[in-house]
Amino acid sequence: MSKPMGPIPAGFAADEDNMLLIGGRRADALVAEAGDTPLFVYDLALIDAKIARYRAAFPGVHLHYAIKANSYQPLLDHVAKQVDGLDIASVGEMDFALESGTSADRISFAGPGKRDGELSEAIQEGLTLNAESEGEVERALSIGRKIGLRPRLAVRVNPDFEIKGSGMRMGGGAKPFGVDAARVPALVRRIVDSGADWRGFHIFAGSQALDADALIEAQAATLALAAQLAEEAGASPPLVNLGGGFGIPHFHGEQALDVEKVGIALGDGLAARAPILRDTQFAIELGRWLVGECGVYLTRIVDRKVSHNKTFLIVDGGLHHQLAASGNFGQVVRRNYPAAIASHFGEEAEEEVNIVGCLCTPLDRLADDVMTPRAEVGDLVAVFLAGAYGLSASPQGFLTQQPALEMVLNARN
Amino acid sequence: MSKPMGPIPAGFAADEDNMLLIGGRRADALVAEAGDTPLFVYDLALIDAKIARYRAAFPGVHLHYAIKANSYQPLLDHVAKQVDGLDIASVGEMDFALESGTSADRISFAGPGKRDGELSEAIQEGLTLNAESEGEVERALSIGRKIGLRPRLAVRVNPDFEIKGSGMRMGGGAKPFGVDAARVPALVRRIVDSGADWRGFHIFAGSQALDADALIEAQAATLALAAQLAEEAGASPPLVNLGGGFGIPHFHGEQALDVEKVGIALGDGLAARAPILRDTQFAIELGRWLVGECGVYLTRIVDRKVSHNKTFLIVDGGLHHQLAASGNFGQVVRRNYPAAIASHFGEEAEEEVNIVGCLCTPLDRLADDVMTPRAEVGDLVAVFLAGAYGLSASPQGFLTQQPALEMVLNARN
Repeated sequence: MSKPMGPIPAGFAADEDNMLLIGGRRADALVAEAGDTPLFVYDLALIDAKIARYRAAFPGVHLHYAIKANSYQPLLDHVAKQVDGLDIASVGEMDFALESGTSADRISFAGPGKRDGELSEAIQEGLTLNAESEGEVERALSIGRKIGLRPRLAVRVNPDFEIKGSGMRMGGGAKPFGVDAARVPALVRRIVDSGADWRGFHIFAGSQALDADALIEAQAATLALAAQLAEEAGASPPLVNLGGGFGIPHFHGEQALDVEKVGIALGDGLAARAPILRDTQFAIELGRWLVGECGVYLTRIVDRKVSHNKTFLIVDGGLHHQLAASGNFGQVVRRNYPAAIASHFGEEAEEEVNIVGCLCTPLDRLADDVMTPRAEVGDLVAVFLAGAYGLSASPQGFLTQQPALEMVLNARN
Repeated sequence: MSKPMGPIPAGFAADEDNMLLIGGRRADALVAEAGDTPLFVYDLALIDAKIARYRAAFPGVHLHYAIKANSYQPLLDHVAKQVDGLDIASVGEMDFALESGTSADRISFAGPGKRDGELSEAIQEGLTLNAESEGEVERALSIGRKIGLRPRLAVRVNPDFEIKGSGMRMGGGAKPFGVDAARVPALVRRIVDSGADWRGFHIFAGSQALDADALIEAQAATLALAAQLAEEAGASPPLVNLGGGFGIPHFHGEQALDVEKVGIALGDGLAARAPILRDTQFAIELGRWLVGECGVYLTRIVDRKVSHNKTFLIVDGGLHHQLAASGNFGQVVRRNYPAAIASHFGEEAEEEVNIVGCLCTPLDRLADDVMTPRAEVGDLVAVFLAGAYGLSASPQGFLTQQPALEMVLNARN
């Protein structure tokens, strides 16, 4: 029996030849321009639309971009100009963030395993460190003293709750991330007393949520927790990063998040917030929701073969560029991402096929038992949702295959 | 309740300071020599011992190295001198194989998605192509005619059986790999009639097997299948690559493969082989079994923290170098690889910890709920079985963290 694929995101159509259009350009023309497949194409206009939607839904709440979702420099440069801050997870990402022209005071650095050298570089640049433990705070203070600079320190909080049904648990119970809420007030006092520049809280309760009510509940709990921690610490946080957690639909049957509903609830919550948070700036940190849907991975069919009555379309890409789409990155049960025959886009499906990558491993599957229009060697396959956690989150060196190319469309200069 | 780790392979001990010794060298001294952590150390003497064991167990059966297991050039150069052939899966790997000084006639190229350009390069170099489909054979013949060279073509067979209980199914039923056995004789005749140089069969029935009886059964079936296909094709195969499938224990309770038992049975099978295989050379293709146990991944503890009564040791490495050990590469249930506190190796375990990587994702786990000696910030952690499918099979670019270093020990020049 054939299996469904995830929903193709809005913004993609076909021309009169049934060729997939990305950003208004034919997929085959994009491949010709880039020079080869496999190719990641990022339509920046789709990111702009997401940002506009966010701005309308969350007036006054800062928007941060979590650049680990996609740090391809042309995409990052485009996004950086339109957001209020960048969240990084390594000094490698710091270099990308600074290269985008973002000033250091708009960059914050989270991550549970920051080395001394990384703390030192970040303090020298003037970034905000989202401290993940008491030990990290002490190391940062010590380094600050040594180099004669006042560290900018926010406290990452491990909340006692998490977004219900979120795709990846980031809070609730024992976690390597942040400091247990109960110990946070003492740590804030330690930071303030040390003379460091306390920047506030980073509270991340989950990710990949599609349920607006679950997000609303988590954000309300986050606001309450921030107020409680501030009261207990006796200090008003300059910034509260509410985390992110906005998911996008990947699989059949999933519905897009109602961000407007979340925005209304958060607006109400902020209007009624505790006095100690009156002058606090709030931010939401987004990665996947902002950029995930803008990307398409284009790969060419190299072989078409039948084995025991199953038809296999073998492409020149694979899990070395698309680990998550292959079902091998944190998934327990493999389900199909949205994919399509780009050179027959929108045509009626007429056969069941298995689209597999070129790697010599049975793990390299891009679409299992899916119905597609008839496709031949040379046709292009599109895998959608390739804008976030695609190339950078995949084992690119595996089997030393041809590297993927990347390009952006609709950049504004 | 604490969870077990997999068995630490033979060949590792501690010195009088309880420092892990790798190839007779202290782990901390190796890190100092390399300059930093994270560091992969490969003890080539352990590979030599594996090769010697193979030679004793399988006299007369060629040994091929599947370089996708580890293509780090100093390791590959060392292995290449001692084996009879190299099996590659891309033209990138072809470059490594040729760089090792291996002559083209000892290199064979498998992989279901070979592009025309790749076929052309391989034919020009004189490699054997393990053809994965009728379509690939036709493309290779056409390219050979165009460039005036006679392709060397073996047929990869999709057998109707697989190694029972093998970790990864490569045969049996519908597969993207090889040609269904029933269609193979016609394809061999096509190759022979075309005037190409038919090199024989490549029959790969599974991988990561630890059960000698299952391997014996699969090898016997492979021999029988090769004879049957040769009879039906009316052609004696110069080479039969029997595949590999030799596993190593990764997890608690697993027992090492009894290769000597497999060798005796194969010897008996070859002595009684069908007349049409009398002049055939046989080969076994190994990757993980040869090099997996020679490697240790060394990473340093950056933070030690407690969250809700659980202790976390956070290291400067992680799943970006150790995707399989993190449990995110094809595993359904996460189990612990063998790991240890390298700077307290062999000391009595006294606390339960979670060893996690530095990435800002809950997927980045190296050892869950394991008992270890007390370890502090600065101590070294060793993850074993890092010699195969380690660095190259991991998303090295994820979060733009510090790259891993690699070094070999006990190289002979």
